[in-house]
Amino acid sequence: MSVRRSAEGAVSPRAQETMFAIKKLEAAPGLSWCSDVPIPKPGPRDVVVAVTHTGMCGTDRHIYEWDAWSSQRVPLGTTIGHEFVGRVAAVGFDVVRTSIGDRVSGEGHIGCGRCQPCRTGNGHICERVDILGIDRDGAFAQYLLLPEDNIWPVHDAIPDRVAAMLDPLGNAMHTVTAAGVSGRSVLITGVGVIGLMATAIAHAAGASLIIAVDIVPRHLEMAREFGASYTFRGDDPDWPAEARRLTHGQGPEVLLEMSGSPAAIRAGFRALRNGGTAALLGLPSRPVEFDLPNDIIFKGATVLGINGRKMYETWYQVEGYLLSGRVPVEAVVSHELPIEQFEHAFDLLRSGEATKIILSVPANA
Amino acid sequence: MSVRRSAEGAVSPRAQETMFAIKKLEAAPGLSWCSDVPIPKPGPRDVVVAVTHTGMCGTDRHIYEWDAWSSQRVPLGTTIGHEFVGRVAAVGFDVVRTSIGDRVSGEGHIGCGRCQPCRTGNGHICERVDILGIDRDGAFAQYLLLPEDNIWPVHDAIPDRVAAMLDPLGNAMHTVTAAGVSGRSVLITGVGVIGLMATAIAHAAGASLIIAVDIVPRHLEMAREFGASYTFRGDDPDWPAEARRLTHGQGPEVLLEMSGSPAAIRAGFRALRNGGTAALLGLPSRPVEFDLPNDIIFKGATVLGINGRKMYETWYQVEGYLLSGRVPVEAVVSHELPIEQFEHAFDLLRSGEATKIILSVPANA
Amino acid sequence: MSVRRSAEGAVSPRAQETMFAIKKLEAAPGLSWCSDVPIPKPGPRDVVVAVTHTGMCGTDRHIYEWDAWSSQRVPLGTTIGHEFVGRVAAVGFDVVRTSIGDRVSGEGHIGCGRCQPCRTGNGHICERVDILGIDRDGAFAQYLLLPEDNIWPVHDAIPDRVAAMLDPLGNAMHTVTAAGVSGRSVLITGVGVIGLMATAIAHAAGASLIIAVDIVPRHLEMAREFGASYTFRGDDPDWPAEARRLTHGQGPEVLLEMSGSPAAIRAGFRALRNGGTAALLGLPSRPVEFDLPNDIIFKGATVLGINGRKMYETWYQVEGYLLSGRVPVEAVVSHELPIEQFEHAFDLLRSGEATKIILSVPANA
Amino acid sequence: MSVRRSAEGAVSPRAQETMFAIKKLEAAPGLSWCSDVPIPKPGPRDVVVAVTHTGMCGTDRHIYEWDAWSSQRVPLGTTIGHEFVGRVAAVGFDVVRTSIGDRVSGEGHIGCGRCQPCRTGNGHICERVDILGIDRDGAFAQYLLLPEDNIWPVHDAIPDRVAAMLDPLGNAMHTVTAAGVSGRSVLITGVGVIGLMATAIAHAAGASLIIAVDIVPRHLEMAREFGASYTFRGDDPDWPAEARRLTHGQGPEVLLEMSGSPAAIRAGFRALRNGGTAALLGLPSRPVEFDLPNDIIFKGATVLGINGRKMYETWYQVEGYLLSGRVPVEAVVSHELPIEQFEHAFDLLRSGEATKIILSVPANA
Repeated sequence: MSVRRSAEGAVSPRAQETMFAIKKLEAAPGLSWCSDVPIPKPGPRDVVVAVTHTGMCGTDRHIYEWDAWSSQRVPLGTTIGHEFVGRVAAVGFDVVRTSIGDRVSGEGHIGCGRCQPCRTGNGHICERVDILGIDRDGAFAQYLLLPEDNIWPVHDAIPDRVAAMLDPLGNAMHTVTAAGVSGRSVLITGVGVIGLMATAIAHAAGASLIIAVDIVPRHLEMAREFGASYTFRGDDPDWPAEARRLTHGQGPEVLLEMSGSPAAIRAGFRALRNGGTAALLGLPSRPVEFDLPNDIIFKGATVLGINGRKMYETWYQVEGYLLSGRVPVEAVVSHELPIEQFEHAFDLLRSGEATKIILSVPANA
Repeated sequence: MSVRRSAEGAVSPRAQETMFAIKKLEAAPGLSWCSDVPIPKPGPRDVVVAVTHTGMCGTDRHIYEWDAWSSQRVPLGTTIGHEFVGRVAAVGFDVVRTSIGDRVSGEGHIGCGRCQPCRTGNGHICERVDILGIDRDGAFAQYLLLPEDNIWPVHDAIPDRVAAMLDPLGNAMHTVTAAGVSGRSVLITGVGVIGLMATAIAHAAGASLIIAVDIVPRHLEMAREFGASYTFRGDDPDWPAEARRLTHGQGPEVLLEMSGSPAAIRAGFRALRNGGTAALLGLPSRPVEFDLPNDIIFKGATVLGINGRKMYETWYQVEGYLLSGRVPVEAVVSHELPIEQFEHAFDLLRSGEATKIILSVPANA
Repeated sequence: MSVRRSAEGAVSPRAQETMFAIKKLEAAPGLSWCSDVPIPKPGPRDVVVAVTHTGMCGTDRHIYEWDAWSSQRVPLGTTIGHEFVGRVAAVGFDVVRTSIGDRVSGEGHIGCGRCQPCRTGNGHICERVDILGIDRDGAFAQYLLLPEDNIWPVHDAIPDRVAAMLDPLGNAMHTVTAAGVSGRSVLITGVGVIGLMATAIAHAAGASLIIAVDIVPRHLEMAREFGASYTFRGDDPDWPAEARRLTHGQGPEVLLEMSGSPAAIRAGFRALRNGGTAALLGLPSRPVEFDLPNDIIFKGATVLGINGRKMYETWYQVEGYLLSGRVPVEAVVSHELPIEQFEHAFDLLRSGEATKIILSVPANA
Repeated sequence: MSVRRSAEGAVSPRAQETMFAIKKLEAAPGLSWCSDVPIPKPGPRDVVVAVTHTGMCGTDRHIYEWDAWSSQRVPLGTTIGHEFVGRVAAVGFDVVRTSIGDRVSGEGHIGCGRCQPCRTGNGHICERVDILGIDRDGAFAQYLLLPEDNIWPVHDAIPDRVAAMLDPLGNAMHTVTAAGVSGRSVLITGVGVIGLMATAIAHAAGASLIIAVDIVPRHLEMAREFGASYTFRGDDPDWPAEARRLTHGQGPEVLLEMSGSPAAIRAGFRALRNGGTAALLGLPSRPVEFDLPNDIIFKGATVLGINGRKMYETWYQVEGYLLSGRVPVEAVVSHELPIEQFEHAFDLLRSGEATKIILSVPANA
């Protein structure tokens, strides 16, 4: 194969032919540890990354559990995982701005590069987008392959645990930025990992007031640490009225929807102020009924569907915020485990014991 | 008639004490012609307008038929109607920029004037808004009363038939402007009166392509005259696929929803391009189910609830377009009748024979 | 006169006919303390405020010194001052939302109320605007008169010293908000009082990096306390190069110009990143030469002229930020003095010893 | 060389080694016809285009005349010209979406591809941008070379004469779009070729009123044909006052500056309405003095520096407008000449006889 030895002397693909990868092999719950998967070979414009840390996401759990969505979308045999940081191990011969040894993360949405969205900075909504760890082999492996265009060099001041979460941080940043929170009152429904990140970013971005809603008490506690002024249990039927009371009786100006719960979505829209903005990131698993006149039309509301990250405006924004030191997102990491313990990690996620889990790859340390 | 100043400095019609008005008197279908209604007296900052022409709107028909919405909202005894042009007949003593005899129309949303929306140019979404002809006595009468703040002086070059429709023209303008159509492909679902106005405005505003959908063949014919490049029958199940085919296979960039039909709304969202904008003006009479991930979230769509007109930015925009001579909206008027023939006019609306009907007030001619 | 006693029992105009006011009486440097000025009487929609605290502004100093600008603009006899907080002492009979005793500040730009800017939320740029303390009698007095539309009720949680500065805080907020600083690197040229306020607001609004430039070392120290990451002496010729170095070699993304110095303006534009935004608030006293191709055109820069405050969007934003507790602007107040000591206060300003001076009105305490 | 025969059988580079090119060879006025220039060979991601038509631009004339700007910027030996349409004659081996024989134009700004502007859809303001025909060999030749990223496939419905002008059409579109003209009154200072294009686009984009100013009477006549409602001679000192009179006494809401004349720029700013937007495309050859307080700050103006075209949003917009059939820009072409007659063409430009000249390349017809 055409790859070259890392300047840092890390384990080089040249010395080995195969690697481990965690794959979806059967149409049933579970994932398989495969120990002799061929190491990917870069095409002319591709980069191979030796993964050092990879984040676990709700999507990974859906694929593990083989739910309705994943069983229709994910081809059997796929290596899962899409959040990562690592070192460049090999580059194609037409790669121009990336070098062996660079510490990098990357954008997991691989656009077609030809369509109008791709050619206007909106590759995240390319109709033919391929997603790392869903449509093609991903980051729960010793090495992954990505086009150079998708590689993001990681600043030295950003620690590995945070660098492994740039993908969900980008989701949170894209949501907060699209909605616009500066000087405005913000309601966040769902403060799991991305909701907590959004809380921290909205606080740093000048939200005048943040109200967080979730059904997990620990999430609410963390939300207060991340900048929420008020928190409510999602099963408290009075929270929408309380949210309005806290905002001059008019309701919050911004709704960041990160729960995917139809009930929370409906309650959030009811609470939203006339003229307010709702940014929707959480994915409901079933249709949601809207009372369009009262929820959106008479209200003069703006509703924004949020998908992925803007390529690459969002990445620059995330870097700017991280370097400012004002979004302490590392605190969402509850566990760091060697990737060999992935079954235990999924148990921790399922039990609700974990918030964010980072898997380290000792072989590439 | 002649006018005079009242003891308080207000001016009132001298020759008569009463007037006619068309009122909702009973909780049943129908409206009543009342011939000895007291002429309204202006408060300090109010203006009384002698109506010369008033437009008939779908809302008036809902109130006539006493449907679920109107029977909950409209107090019995209310004079209906909210589209008008006329001459100022009397002014309160604290009126400062309006004079007896001015030719005027007016904004029918009367905001509270104190809340944040009212104080930031968004009085159309004031939570305590009163609407002319719905919450207070309206324009199907010889005289109407409005706060001076809501009075709009009508430019001489705008004919009465058009001036009587500034309210729905403003709805169309607000929808088109909020969505942003310049250089973009536009789908309009529902080309009744406001949809036709939106077609004309979108064409003048530089839409690169306009696709109109309706179930009434005559509306589609008119849409083509107003600037639509392609039209489809709403009951043709292939229209969303055709709309995508006509737009590089990606779907239109803008959806202007003016039908209120849940089926059209769902089809419109399915057709919409990734990254597109949907502006919703039509009011569905029942809940609408959304497949949020595919209709809005993955699509990265922007959805705008449109209500009334921006106060008064939209009014200036309408005036600018009308004076440019490039929105030939007078052609939507299919009938002009004396207001005494209002029952016949409602028959024409119900039968589908009429598009827009203007009622003239001979007494004020 | 028609005014009534305050519920709180504050000194009432009814008990007196005259008041003190600080006026520009002669076309020469200086101001006059006038002790028997008639107390203003409210017109139908006017409010009379018993001033308790008033802020001193650079504009007041220009009028004191009778510079080129003020000698052309300010009519002799005018009471100066435009920053204030106080209690409502009297209201006109057509005042509807303001009561005797309310603690209020107010917008000093009094628009005509009829023109397009006034009717679209942009009264700050009304061509016929009258400014308090410049075109009409202002706040350096025991009582001032303002139309009710311009009155802003002050939240209880905002202390008097801050409430007396809502006008310049609004300037700073308008500048920061118009430019958009969230996640962006910001250069502030001129960190006197408004520049310091802008520093605090930009920090709270999520600027990723703030670079402050001034010629007064104490201002730079304060800027660091208010959130600036780096500061430079304006007479250090290397600062533009340093500012670029600190921002990935590309220059800051936002310039907030608050010095009015032609040299600083030119240097700021040179430092600005391609595609950056410059918001100009500082008023140069002489023409400024631009190398348009390199400073603006090739750079793809956006330049925003900032005047006053948006009416009243900016006021809501200021309130939101103040209540969030994250803009510690009270620290700009270096001195609080009784208004009788205004001559000493001007000395302190001239000497550079003072940053912001608040004058209290013991008679209304 | 590695190029391949065109499917259409057009003259193929394989059959020849050299071509003609019009080059700047000496540091003096004039250009040289060189007949045995090596045909460019594509790198891995490059495309070679057989030029069929190329447009002449004011920039080409500056280089011909060797003015101050060009003598500092353009390396001797450069082939000039940057507006073109042609057929793909050869492609590098890593080219993925372009085929031999494709009819194409291209973006002449070649960004570095690595910096923040390049990675966020703003490659037109890349600090290391290379421009075709200025910094590298251009379009006044039988063949030109461009990275595939910069190639724009031309729609069949767009005629060659228009396709050869997509570059300046994009300048006009970028200017009009950035300013936002829908429903607004527009002043265009300078209606040479790009100003005329901007007139047509602003008209199609819904400008309510267009006022054009130029010193060439023929330009003003053409501007009226392209949609201007009013035109003024630039040497008529009353035009700014007239422009204000025609716009409710307030001045136009938008200024599109395309003259580069300091006097026109100053007059344009004076005429501009409070709150208006000025988009600057014309390049003054000397510094311009601004009265910042009155021209920009008190006015609350927005000033936009316009450079090139957004990559590639502007290209999609131009295509949409052209296909709508509503911007009849072909009419700006006054002459089409074989490229061998370039000296005559420059004479025509200099004499003012020509508006736009298209040079055809018979060898590639």
